[in-house]
Amino acid sequence: MGYKAITLVKRPEGEITPDIFEVVEREVPELAEGQIHVRQTHMSLDPAMRGWMNDDRGSYLPPVEIGAVMRANGIGEVVASRFEGLSPGDRVWGGFGWAEEAVVHGATALPVPAGVDADAFMCVLAIPGLTAAYGLFEIGEPKAGETILITGAAGSVGTLVGQMAKAEGLRVIGVSGSDDKRRWMEETLGFDATLNYKDPNLYKALIAAAPDGIDVFFENTGGPIQSMAMTCMNPFGRVIVCGVISDYNKSTPSPGPSWVHLVRKRVKVQGFTLPDHAAKFPALQQRLIGYLQGGHIQYRAHTLEGLESAIEGINLLFSGGNNGKLMVAL
Amino acid sequence: MGYKAITLVKRPEGEITPDIFEVVEREVPELAEGQIHVRQTHMSLDPAMRGWMNDDRGSYLPPVEIGAVMRANGIGEVVASRFEGLSPGDRVWGGFGWAEEAVVHGATALPVPAGVDADAFMCVLAIPGLTAAYGLFEIGEPKAGETILITGAAGSVGTLVGQMAKAEGLRVIGVSGSDDKRRWMEETLGFDATLNYKDPNLYKALIAAAPDGIDVFFENTGGPIQSMAMTCMNPFGRVIVCGVISDYNKSTPSPGPSWVHLVRKRVKVQGFTLPDHAAKFPALQQRLIGYLQGGHIQYRAHTLEGLESAIEGINLLFSGGNNGKLMVAL
Repeated sequence: MGYKAITLVKRPEGEITPDIFEVVEREVPELAEGQIHVRQTHMSLDPAMRGWMNDDRGSYLPPVEIGAVMRANGIGEVVASRFEGLSPGDRVWGGFGWAEEAVVHGATALPVPAGVDADAFMCVLAIPGLTAAYGLFEIGEPKAGETILITGAAGSVGTLVGQMAKAEGLRVIGVSGSDDKRRWMEETLGFDATLNYKDPNLYKALIAAAPDGIDVFFENTGGPIQSMAMTCMNPFGRVIVCGVISDYNKSTPSPGPSWVHLVRKRVKVQGFTLPDHAAKFPALQQRLIGYLQGGHIQYRAHTLEGLESAIEGINLLFSGGNNGKLMVAL
Repeated sequence: MGYKAITLVKRPEGEITPDIFEVVEREVPELAEGQIHVRQTHMSLDPAMRGWMNDDRGSYLPPVEIGAVMRANGIGEVVASRFEGLSPGDRVWGGFGWAEEAVVHGATALPVPAGVDADAFMCVLAIPGLTAAYGLFEIGEPKAGETILITGAAGSVGTLVGQMAKAEGLRVIGVSGSDDKRRWMEETLGFDATLNYKDPNLYKALIAAAPDGIDVFFENTGGPIQSMAMTCMNPFGRVIVCGVISDYNKSTPSPGPSWVHLVRKRVKVQGFTLPDHAAKFPALQQRLIGYLQGGHIQYRAHTLEGLESAIEGINLLFSGGNNGKLMVAL
């Protein structure tokens, strides 16, 4: 009854390299009262993992301890249960780690709604969708007719933010690092304008794309676009700081935009992390299901095969090499 | 019936120099229906004036036009009135400009409460107090037992923020650029700790002064303390960006702190400007009167004499040379 798992054996310095992980064999222990045994079918790879690898006890989640199974969430099937309300065969979503199987307390696993397939759940209703919906609606307070700028717009969160904003009647400007992705965002997702952050005339392009200024800025990446965006903010603009992926691998993060703009334009800049808002997950998922059923959301999964593919695969998130929500099928 | 006024004749490049102003003689025009004629007795000098001198049409107030009387607020006595509800002899507060006298619509002037003398009004109930109270309470949401860091803490706004925070049971850390002011803040205002931003070991001193981290950061100045403070923010901290006075005279503002901290600590950074919140002035003044009557607020005026003293005097705000709320007695 052994299964494979991947542990963190040292902390990365800068980029994530294969030598910080170890593939181990684990045995499923006897279930205690309240526990469930889950066979994971799909495991999510997310930019936040880079932060969890640091020895940073002041962050929003404790670091992954050296020697522990790397943290991840995913969906799986209940194999055995000593938790009332979950039975073998049920599909659940939870923090199962970089592992083929897991034993967790049943209360930490949430049911996967019937009729939602694994890709739809992982791409829209799990972390990316909850992140997009919380940031956009709870912090961004978008209003029809406003303009939203989204960095990392072709990413798993950005595509959902943009499509929901379109559905709400906003002008959507998506930023990415590839012209292929730009085309896809414009032609398939229906974004109003797109920018390539590698464009040497990026600031000019931004001004042309946002003739009425920017009301909502959904920031996933960091980089020079951040300061450019701040100079284009309209009065009372809202900035959702979801992530600054370009900084996660740096030992010294880049400076941010001057706060002069914050005063002049009375802008709010708000960082958030999803685990703080677990109580809102059911309501946010209902909202996301509405957009999905309304035909407002297209998504694509970038699925790697087999647990060990995570080791190299996670770096696709930082190179921009993934095309769609990155996950591992087990 | 002539009076003196000061007009803006060119826009400053960097620092404010006397040649951008002109002292002119004006005549009081015949009052139109609804207007009042005011003889100004005290005129406020505020850091925001530097911004109003720029040709910046995207800011929260339009620039002062070239040739127009420089914008300011102050208190004065009604000389003549064609506005119902105001009579000669009434004391009013309003936007009377850099001028000995002014004619304004009566609805734009607010009565000065009886029993409040000019210094108390200008130092506590006018712009500095409204700014301090709005920022601290509406954005900062201070709670007893929390720690607040205040830059420009010996300034007209900072002293009020710190004293109100003390009254609410917070640990107050004040930053200024002079050890005399530090002593005054500790001994007279009762702040718990103070820092000199010129201290070569400022970061160490900050960490020692804030052993439990920072929950509320009231930012008036900018400078390196800004990024240091951000690394000390506690989860769900609130940052009130009231001003970045160190940047106002620069053509290119300094960068701000990395946004990495905003995500890790789920911090909110909010800029504001007071004119947006005029509807709250009466309630904020009531609150300020409460602190004043409760003996929680000490204040000091730095009063220049005569209209023309404003021309050189305004720079005291940027050099830190003023000791107390800077104003001109006319």
